[in-house]
Amino acid sequence: MTRGDLFDPACPTRLLLDRVGSRWTTMAVLSLAAADGELRFTELRRAMAGVSQKMLSQTLKALERDGLVSRRVEASNPPRVHYRLTELGATLVPPLRGLREWAERYMPLVQEHAAG
Amino acid sequence: MTRGDLFDPACPTRLLLDRVGSRWTTMAVLSLAAADGELRFTELRRAMAGVSQKMLSQTLKALERDGLVSRRVEASNPPRVHYRLTELGATLVPPLRGLREWAERYMPLVQEHAAG
Repeated sequence: MTRGDLFDPACPTRLLLDRVGSRWTTMAVLSLAAADGELRFTELRRAMAGVSQKMLSQTLKALERDGLVSRRVEASNPPRVHYRLTELGATLVPPLRGLREWAERYMPLVQEHAAG
Repeated sequence: MTRGDLFDPACPTRLLLDRVGSRWTTMAVLSLAAADGELRFTELRRAMAGVSQKMLSQTLKALERDGLVSRRVEASNPPRVHYRLTELGATLVPPLRGLREWAERYMPLVQEHAAG
């Protein structure tokens, strides 16, 4: 297959979209992009205020499985785990920045509408 | 509030991001954008192949609540319900196009990675 199709119900593109468009994926990818290199699990957890250990762990596993994030275990005692965006993961940064920018900019208008 | 902050756990921006980054929201907004006007419920359901009546109904209610889609009931027998993007909803089209483009373009590479 050379390209996905969001509007084809048999195509996994829609599943991928659900994964990458969620808040924790967005925050993890943008935190790693801002770090411009590796971050440890504890650093990511601090950057992504409000994320639970379990949710961060699940988010990183899904990103690894999709080839968007790579994981390096440092042979220290205790071992330290480092994460970074892969080349493929870096391609996701611009669209997620666009989505974040929209959400932050228009959130007050959405709130206003929901309250009115 | 003049602007949201995705990284502030007390800010509703992250909830909004979850809503707008999901597959059905993306498909509904892009279908309405492609129609460049109104679509009826049944037309939207056809455009969004694979969506259930219940899921489409929930998606449209959430979009209405957020002020992104407006609803017009035509006094026919039976009454027909028409949907269109609001001005606010139209601002969401470019970022969702970006996300869709990424997902369709890179889905094959993600699949390849997951299989390997």
